[in-house]
Amino acid sequence: MKFEERVESQQIVYQGPLVQVEKQTVTLPDQTTATREIVRHQPAIAVLMVTADHQMILEKQWRSAVGGLTLEIPAGKVEPGERALQAAVRELNEETRMQAAHLEAVAQFYTSPGFTDELMTLYVATGLTAVNTALPQDADEQIQLEKLPLKTALAQVQAGQIQDAKTVMAIWYWQNHPEIGGQR
Amino acid sequence: MKFEERVESQQIVYQGPLVQVEKQTVTLPDQTTATREIVRHQPAIAVLMVTADHQMILEKQWRSAVGGLTLEIPAGKVEPGERALQAAVRELNEETRMQAAHLEAVAQFYTSPGFTDELMTLYVATGLTAVNTALPQDADEQIQLEKLPLKTALAQVQAGQIQDAKTVMAIWYWQNHPEIGGQR
Repeated sequence: MKFEERVESQQIVYQGPLVQVEKQTVTLPDQTTATREIVRHQPAIAVLMVTADHQMILEKQWRSAVGGLTLEIPAGKVEPGERALQAAVRELNEETRMQAAHLEAVAQFYTSPGFTDELMTLYVATGLTAVNTALPQDADEQIQLEKLPLKTALAQVQAGQIQDAKTVMAIWYWQNHPEIGGQR
Repeated sequence: MKFEERVESQQIVYQGPLVQVEKQTVTLPDQTTATREIVRHQPAIAVLMVTADHQMILEKQWRSAVGGLTLEIPAGKVEPGERALQAAVRELNEETRMQAAHLEAVAQFYTSPGFTDELMTLYVATGLTAVNTALPQDADEQIQLEKLPLKTALAQVQAGQIQDAKTVMAIWYWQNHPEIGGQR
């Protein structure tokens, strides 16, 4: 079976501060033509932080796209010129004022490959301590930290109180690896 | 802590066949003003299909947004007027020519709430049989089905061969629930 689509032409149809929309005309393997619409977005990182007392750190914040509050693991965009790991270290500092002795990438994935190229790396962070030097925070971001044990986090996914893909993923990963953060 | 942002004005800045981009001017809890950019997308469904011989069904397809092939669980948009469960039944038929005796929603989540309102429901499907009446397929969608046992699927996530968020989620969910598809 042949899959590859050849891009015949492309144009940027929307350019915003956060996303760019691109339209492509492509030739399919059967030589017919189709149109593709792609939302370009910076790569991103997300971090499952597990404390020494076996709790995960979550952020309560307002999300315009959802029109309400969400509970999410710390996350953010990888800035131009930055590596994913650096972005993870920076976001932990900015959003939680913590640093991690161990920071390990456990998966990398496209958040919704049907329409966007956003590529996210999920890290697990343990050995958490307070940072010495706090980085400046985004002025328009209001974040409240919460801590939850695995059992409560699983119940909140089930109850629909946690409704963020990367956070659900992180919780299910943790469920599979209950040793994270030290022996129980 | 106050979180709610008040929407002062909004306008559609891009309208395409798949997505719509909206710009909002919002007032933050501290009464300052900020701009929000939101990519509107139809809700979606995804289905972890587990066969009687304990394999998951995956689709190999070309994704323009990624510029390459991906391995993903069956998924698709919920069409206007359709319920999520109906969309799951329809997509299984269209993309895999199968129907499920048991179809259960296990989580609902925003795929990337930092910029889009796409809301996805993840189903688990078991008791799979061939459909009697095949629905028409999308003309511009080329799909090749694959079957993988859990162990191989986990190895492919680790190796970066499976790089789709909903598929990684589904595999980790399955790892937590190895009883899916019958006793081993």
